[in-house]
Amino acid sequence: MAETLTIWTYDWVPAGPRGFVRDLRLRWAAEEANLAYDVRAVPFEDRETNHLDSQPFGQVPFLADGNVKIFETGACLLHLARKSEKLMPRDASGAAETLQWVIAALNSIEMVTVPWWFLKVSGQEDNGLADWMGRRLAQLEAVLSERDWLAVDRFTVADLIMADVLRVPEVRAHGERPASEAYVARLTARPAFRKAHSDQIAHFAAADDEWSNRG
Amino acid sequence: MAETLTIWTYDWVPAGPRGFVRDLRLRWAAEEANLAYDVRAVPFEDRETNHLDSQPFGQVPFLADGNVKIFETGACLLHLARKSEKLMPRDASGAAETLQWVIAALNSIEMVTVPWWFLKVSGQEDNGLADWMGRRLAQLEAVLSERDWLAVDRFTVADLIMADVLRVPEVRAHGERPASEAYVARLTARPAFRKAHSDQIAHFAAADDEWSNRG
Repeated sequence: MAETLTIWTYDWVPAGPRGFVRDLRLRWAAEEANLAYDVRAVPFEDRETNHLDSQPFGQVPFLADGNVKIFETGACLLHLARKSEKLMPRDASGAAETLQWVIAALNSIEMVTVPWWFLKVSGQEDNGLADWMGRRLAQLEAVLSERDWLAVDRFTVADLIMADVLRVPEVRAHGERPASEAYVARLTARPAFRKAHSDQIAHFAAADDEWSNRG
Repeated sequence: MAETLTIWTYDWVPAGPRGFVRDLRLRWAAEEANLAYDVRAVPFEDRETNHLDSQPFGQVPFLADGNVKIFETGACLLHLARKSEKLMPRDASGAAETLQWVIAALNSIEMVTVPWWFLKVSGQEDNGLADWMGRRLAQLEAVLSERDWLAVDRFTVADLIMADVLRVPEVRAHGERPASEAYVARLTARPAFRKAHSDQIAHFAAADDEWSNRG
């Protein structure tokens, strides 16, 4: 019998990040691959110190797969991808092609979009990362103008993570990239994304009463 | 017979980035794992467009392993790690522990240090990413104060990439982190790093005459 997967997230977050907390990426992958999973929570309060044994940067999600514990969303996704050919092909060439686009999402695109977003929401609307981000997103737009999926002509975990990086509203609103927009629309219309998204919204909403009582 | 590995980099770069171009990470990994490799080059001139078929963001390095082609340094490293237990253990738990720290280096540390560095060298000395970077590096310092290696109590590819992220001079000069400093010193004293580093310096220096003749 397969070990149960447990996805750890916060017990509650404010309205702003709901639908964007990264446990969504793991829920989405598990739904695509038809892997059974539980969701458990660490307290949002004191999140910078209360689960450092499981995640040394105080972030979520992290994953338990039987005795295997793993943090960093990208690492958890690559771990899940080993369990399902739906997420990543088994042949060396297809696996390499998928892996390179997973890392491109994390280290070439998100490495610019997240710091740009961070500065923007901190009040630096016109910050020094905008040109760099624009160039990277234009390069990606050129790729997505030529094909529907990043790797091996079908959905893989690389599309899951890239679409989740690109669907951030502030990023979508910065410039016009029709192929990237169509890509995000296509990926976020998948039933597995929609279930992961509504489950996350429901998870945080369920804790609202308890949080409002504390106030 | 094993296929030959080919690491692709630029034919030349200015003095500033020498010793830091990321083909060094692949050279270092191949040296640690005792994997044979060739180094080939694409022109630095017109680098934003001349090799987009191999690397859609115009970056280096990329890797050829027989018929398998792969870009993104992190993906290339994980591909090489499958070839050698020296870089990553084979058991599921040890592999997960190593993988999570590779991704942490790319997506939790480098995602802040590189944009911070970019803004700093663009003239924004005191930019809005400094506090965030300081917190992340302090969290990592806490980890490195407790142990010598990030994963499985020995050198892995996770240490290779984290040390290469941390050894950037501007990052080292920002704050005091003695455990991280000792870690960088220990990793960069390894013979495999020193060979990779001196080979990269020699590779770019060998092209200086040709470049000065063009000027």
